[in-house]
Amino acid sequence: MRLLSVLVSLLLALPCWAQISDDFQPATTNVWGANYPRVDHQGRVQVRIKAPEAAKVRLNFWSGPKIDMEKQPDGFWTATTSPLAPGLHYYTVIVDGADVSDPASTAYFGGTRYASAVEVPEPGETYYAINTVPHGQVREIWYPSKVTGGWRHALVYLPPNYDTQTKTRYPVLYLQHGGGEDETGWIRQGRANFILDNLEASGRSKPMIVVMAYGYAQRAGQPPQDLNGKPFGSPEMLAAVHDMISVFEEDVTRALIPFVDATFRTIPDRDHRAMAGLSLGGMETFQITVNHLDLFSYIGGFSGGGSFLTGRNQFDPKVDYNGVFSDSAAFARKVHLLWLGVGTQEPERMRAGLLSLHTALEQAHINHVWYESPGTDHEWQTWRRDLRDFAPRLFH
Amino acid sequence: MRLLSVLVSLLLALPCWAQISDDFQPATTNVWGANYPRVDHQGRVQVRIKAPEAAKVRLNFWSGPKIDMEKQPDGFWTATTSPLAPGLHYYTVIVDGADVSDPASTAYFGGTRYASAVEVPEPGETYYAINTVPHGQVREIWYPSKVTGGWRHALVYLPPNYDTQTKTRYPVLYLQHGGGEDETGWIRQGRANFILDNLEASGRSKPMIVVMAYGYAQRAGQPPQDLNGKPFGSPEMLAAVHDMISVFEEDVTRALIPFVDATFRTIPDRDHRAMAGLSLGGMETFQITVNHLDLFSYIGGFSGGGSFLTGRNQFDPKVDYNGVFSDSAAFARKVHLLWLGVGTQEPERMRAGLLSLHTALEQAHINHVWYESPGTDHEWQTWRRDLRDFAPRLFH
Repeated sequence: MRLLSVLVSLLLALPCWAQISDDFQPATTNVWGANYPRVDHQGRVQVRIKAPEAAKVRLNFWSGPKIDMEKQPDGFWTATTSPLAPGLHYYTVIVDGADVSDPASTAYFGGTRYASAVEVPEPGETYYAINTVPHGQVREIWYPSKVTGGWRHALVYLPPNYDTQTKTRYPVLYLQHGGGEDETGWIRQGRANFILDNLEASGRSKPMIVVMAYGYAQRAGQPPQDLNGKPFGSPEMLAAVHDMISVFEEDVTRALIPFVDATFRTIPDRDHRAMAGLSLGGMETFQITVNHLDLFSYIGGFSGGGSFLTGRNQFDPKVDYNGVFSDSAAFARKVHLLWLGVGTQEPERMRAGLLSLHTALEQAHINHVWYESPGTDHEWQTWRRDLRDFAPRLFH
Repeated sequence: MRLLSVLVSLLLALPCWAQISDDFQPATTNVWGANYPRVDHQGRVQVRIKAPEAAKVRLNFWSGPKIDMEKQPDGFWTATTSPLAPGLHYYTVIVDGADVSDPASTAYFGGTRYASAVEVPEPGETYYAINTVPHGQVREIWYPSKVTGGWRHALVYLPPNYDTQTKTRYPVLYLQHGGGEDETGWIRQGRANFILDNLEASGRSKPMIVVMAYGYAQRAGQPPQDLNGKPFGSPEMLAAVHDMISVFEEDVTRALIPFVDATFRTIPDRDHRAMAGLSLGGMETFQITVNHLDLFSYIGGFSGGGSFLTGRNQFDPKVDYNGVFSDSAAFARKVHLLWLGVGTQEPERMRAGLLSLHTALEQAHINHVWYESPGTDHEWQTWRRDLRDFAPRLFH
C-alpha cells in the first residue's frame, strides 16, 4: 500500500516535472485577462495573434528576433522566440505587410507610435518592482510655453511624504525619454517611480523631484521638424535634430524650469538641479546642461551623449561646446557629476559613439563615471540600471 | 494693372474656395507627425493604413460605420466615412481578419485592449478643451488593498491651487470608467480634468477632488471573473458581473476611500462625497452608493444605472436594493442628488434600460435629474456632457 501510494505520487508528480521545461506564464505587460504573450524562465516569449485570413504574419522584436509566425487551425498565428535578455522589449506584428501592435499587449509609446512590449523578468531583481515601501506620486502637469506657443504636458514624480512634510524643499532631476518615445516613457516603460521609491526606502538615494518633459519642440507658429525619411546621421537629419534640441533647450530653460520652481517645493539652484536622458534625451541633456552650467551641476547620458551633434566622429573637448571641457579643473569645480553609460549588447554604432566620448573625456582628464550594463541592448533594462546607478550619486 | 492684380488675386483665391468642401485636417488624436486620420468640418473621417500585401482591409468604428477600405497603388488603404457625430470615436482596422489598432492614432484603453480613436470636434464647444484657465493636476496613486490582495492604481484630479491653499479641504467625486476601459479613461478619453478646470474657472462648479479607480476587482487569491464569452445579459454573465462589482464595492469602501481620506485634504463625510460612473461604472455606482448611504449622498448614472443587475427587465423601487427607494421622502432627505443620463442615439437596448429606471423612479416619486444628450451614442461625448451637467450640481 505504501509503495503504491509513493508510485501514485510519483506519477501525479510527473506533469509537474515536465512543466519545468515549459513554464510559460502570461507577461506582466499584458492587458487585463490576456493569456498571451507568455514568458518562460529562460526568457523565451510566445506570441499569439488572430489573423484568420492572413497569408503571412511576422513577429518583429525591434531589438530582437524577427521570425515568421505559424498559422494554427483555429485562425491564430503563434511563434516562440529564443531566450531574450531580461527587460522590456518593444515589438510589433506584421500582418500581410501591415506593421501593427498586438491587441493583447499594453501599448507603449515608442518609435513615434503606440507599440507592444513584453516584460521578461530579471530573476532576483526587485529594484524596479512595486514593493511594500512608501510610494511617491506621479503628477501630470500642463505648463504654458511662449517658446513653443502652447500648453505642454509633463510628468512629475514627487517623493513619498511630499504632501505631509510641507516645510521640506527638494532637489530636482530632469529626466528625458528617447527618440520616438514621449514623456510617459520613464514611468510606463522605465518604472522610474518604483526605482526611486526603492532607492529612497533603502537610503541609497536622497528624496528628489523628477521631471519628465516631452522632448520634442517646435517654435511657435512653425511646423514640426521632419525627422522621418532622412538618412540616419545625414547632415539633413543632424540639422533637423539640432534645431529641435535648440528649441527644446529654450523651452526647458525659459518655460519648464521656472514653472517647476514656481509649482513645487524645489531647491531652485544649480547645486540641486540635475539632468539626464537616454539616447536622444542624452544628447538633449548634454547640450542643455553644458550650455547652462549656471542651471545644472549633475549630468547623465544614458546611451546618448555629446559626440553625435558635433557632426564629427570624434568629440573634441578642446573646441566643442565653447571649450567648456578644455579646462578639466574648472569643469570639475562646476560639475559635481558627469555620468555616461551604455549596454554591452547595444549596436556597435551606438557603443562606438559613447566609447569615443568616454575616451576623449579620459584623455582630457575630465572626471566622469563610465558604466556598462552587462548583456543589455539599446533598450529599457539598460536605462533602468543606469538610473539605479545614477540617482544615488546625486545631491550629496 | 489694377484690374489684372484683382484678377490674379481672384485666381489665386480659387483653391481656397475649393477647399471649403474638402477641408480635412489631421485629427487631434493622432500621434506626433501623423497626417491621418483626418477630419473635415462635416465630421467625415479619412483613415489611411499601410498594408501592401493584404487582400482585404476593413475600417471598424465601434459605434459607427464599418466599411471596406480601398487599396491604393502605393500599398496604403484608405476610406472616408459619412459624417460622424462630434466626440471621440473608438475604431480598429481589420487586416485580413486581424482586428488591430491604427499605428497613426493615440492608443486608448477600451474594449479590454488598446484601441484607436478619432476626435471629431464639436463646433463652438470649448468646455473640454485645454483653455487659459488655472489647471488642476492629475496624480497617479497606488493604494494597497487587502480585499484584492495587491496594489491598485488610480488617478486623482486635484483642483487648481490645491498645493498652495494648504488649509482648504475639498469634497470628493468618485468617477468610474465603463466596461472594457480602465482608470485612465476619464482623463485620456473624457478630458475630465479640463472639464473640471473650465467649470471651476467659470464659477459653475465647486472645487473638488475627483478619484478615478480601476473598476475591476477579484478577491485576493482568486482568478479574474471571466466576463468574455458569456452572452450579454445571460444569467452567467450577470453572476460574473455581480461578483466583480461586489468585490469592487468592498475595495472602494474598505481600501480606496480610507486611503484617499488619509492622503488628500478631503472633507471625509457623506455630505461631501459623490459617486458617478458610465455604463458598467454606472451600475457600480448604483450598487455601491445605495448600499452605503452612510458614505455617499450624490449619485450619478451615465448611460448605466440600477436596473440591469436585478436580473429583471423592470426595476422595482419597492423591493430592489433592500427597499431603500420605497420611501421617497426618506430617500430625498438622504440623497442630495440622483442623476441619470443617456444619449439619444444610444442603442435601443441601452436606452430602454435607463428609460425604464427613470420611469420607475418617477412613478415612485423619487426625485432625480433625467438628462438626454442630443445626437450622441454610447460614447464619450455623451459622458463629457453628463459630467458638465452633473458636476455643477454637487456639494452645494
